[in-house]
Amino acid sequence: MKVPEEIVELLKREQSFTIVSHINPEGDALGASIALALALRLLNRDVRVFNRDGVPYMYGFLPFSELVETGMDRERLKNSVLIVLDCNDLERVGLKEVECKKIVVIDHHQTVTDFGHIRWIEPESPAAGLMVYNLLKELGTVIDRAMAVNLYAAIAVDTGTFRYENTTPEVLRAAAELVEAGVNPGEVSRRLYESWSVNKFRLLVSMLKTVEIVNTGNINSAISIITLDMFRETGADASDTENFINFPRMIESVDISAMFREVESGCWKASLRSKGNCDVSLIASHFGGGGHKNAAGYKVCGDIEEVKRGLLEAIQDLVATR
Amino acid sequence: MKVPEEIVELLKREQSFTIVSHINPEGDALGASIALALALRLLNRDVRVFNRDGVPYMYGFLPFSELVETGMDRERLKNSVLIVLDCNDLERVGLKEVECKKIVVIDHHQTVTDFGHIRWIEPESPAAGLMVYNLLKELGTVIDRAMAVNLYAAIAVDTGTFRYENTTPEVLRAAAELVEAGVNPGEVSRRLYESWSVNKFRLLVSMLKTVEIVNTGNINSAISIITLDMFRETGADASDTENFINFPRMIESVDISAMFREVESGCWKASLRSKGNCDVSLIASHFGGGGHKNAAGYKVCGDIEEVKRGLLEAIQDLVATR
Repeated sequence: MKVPEEIVELLKREQSFTIVSHINPEGDALGASIALALALRLLNRDVRVFNRDGVPYMYGFLPFSELVETGMDRERLKNSVLIVLDCNDLERVGLKEVECKKIVVIDHHQTVTDFGHIRWIEPESPAAGLMVYNLLKELGTVIDRAMAVNLYAAIAVDTGTFRYENTTPEVLRAAAELVEAGVNPGEVSRRLYESWSVNKFRLLVSMLKTVEIVNTGNINSAISIITLDMFRETGADASDTENFINFPRMIESVDISAMFREVESGCWKASLRSKGNCDVSLIASHFGGGGHKNAAGYKVCGDIEEVKRGLLEAIQDLVATR
Repeated sequence: MKVPEEIVELLKREQSFTIVSHINPEGDALGASIALALALRLLNRDVRVFNRDGVPYMYGFLPFSELVETGMDRERLKNSVLIVLDCNDLERVGLKEVECKKIVVIDHHQTVTDFGHIRWIEPESPAAGLMVYNLLKELGTVIDRAMAVNLYAAIAVDTGTFRYENTTPEVLRAAAELVEAGVNPGEVSRRLYESWSVNKFRLLVSMLKTVEIVNTGNINSAISIITLDMFRETGADASDTENFINFPRMIESVDISAMFREVESGCWKASLRSKGNCDVSLIASHFGGGGHKNAAGYKVCGDIEEVKRGLLEAIQDLVATR
């Protein structure tokens, strides 16, 4: 990965920075933001970190997560370099417009916009955290334990702790170095995967009980449901359902995992995850939604049995036109 | 990690080898065995791989897993060097006695025996696979894709794909090199974690429905049950239950996950897993069982409610004497 010299020079030259990342932030957005902020602070720069939605409870373990602010100081921003991390437009940041000195975009998502004065986009990078790791090495700053934990968590979240396809030799070597810098990998994993509330666990069990496996054409779909009643009975909330959709994927024969979560009475957020070559974005767009080949979603209202039937028909059509 | 020269010299000098590993083999025992066999074959040695229980279905994806034999050629063994991998006595191998040329033990488990002529024990190594990886480097053999997949799977299984405490910089760097040698980490993870049968999934859901969280003293135990009826209803079997006990551990407040699996009518195999400092081997030994601090087990017969009460009392006693 080649770090653009322009960015290194800018970080060395400028004094004031504002780091922002996307709404509903996860470990990569937060860890990359905080690590970069800590490095710039070490270089005596004036740095602020903004995230519209703040730090979710489960990421409170990230060292210096308290740096993340949910309010933007617009006056200060005018003379500050804006660094947009792990996303590449203002809409994802949750801001309408900005007045700032310069805009730098650092992202690993494929991009369609040309927002920003300097754009560093690496679609091949598994995580924004790995880009920041390389940037810090290029800057020549020490990576201390606090930065290392933030970068390790960023990388861990976006590679499923090295379980996804995007696990490269480079990211494994970076992880090795971060462990040497003081990260306890077992501790990070416990925070990421063993910090569930009892309510969340109860909701998962309720959801798993609804799993139906339906074969349409040659596609096996695991369909699950979370109703408003289930939220009420377990005391869990929508933010607890992140990742639930991956559980039915453990079944070898399942091609698509589809989860319907009731958002208001009779209206559903459908999430679709597929394995391999099955393109669920085509299904989602049929219902006015969107996404990528292996992860997509849409919104739909109606009786749950009808809604499920609608999905299965769309899958059937997809198979027929292939 | 320092590879004993004695072993390297022996492998270079001798012509016939028999590689054995422990009964109920998992990825580390199998992957380490097969990789070492492939390397010795490349050096034109006569190699056979023995495992009493053979290769479980889920490990059929390991390249050259068909090398593993469940029958031992005793005549051939007499003039062969026996390499005992991922365990350090004959009982674990499932053999009563052996007549062979020499015995080499390569293991990462703490040991109490002095079995074998050459013993290479590395309790700090996360996996036997990492020891074999270092041995192959020392031998100077090429690590081809087939060896790499076996070693990567070995390492992945014993580190929870880099989620456990034993994840070291060394094991991450070895993984990086194995990926460069041709391993697809996403594919290995799919084989390890997304290859469940529908029956196994149904059994998990049945088991999760039974989870009760009980507080005794200051210890939170998640107690779950798998009955013979549940096996019958789902069509799953005992081998499917491996790892089920880890699901309740996702709950942050749970200190001990205890699972009772009915082995014959009214008799139970109790498995205990704990987090942090809670020593479940003390509880297991109270019931005549054994294990380690964070993983132990015992057998018990009786009405399930009594059996559960017995466990909770033992936990209570443990707390009282601390």
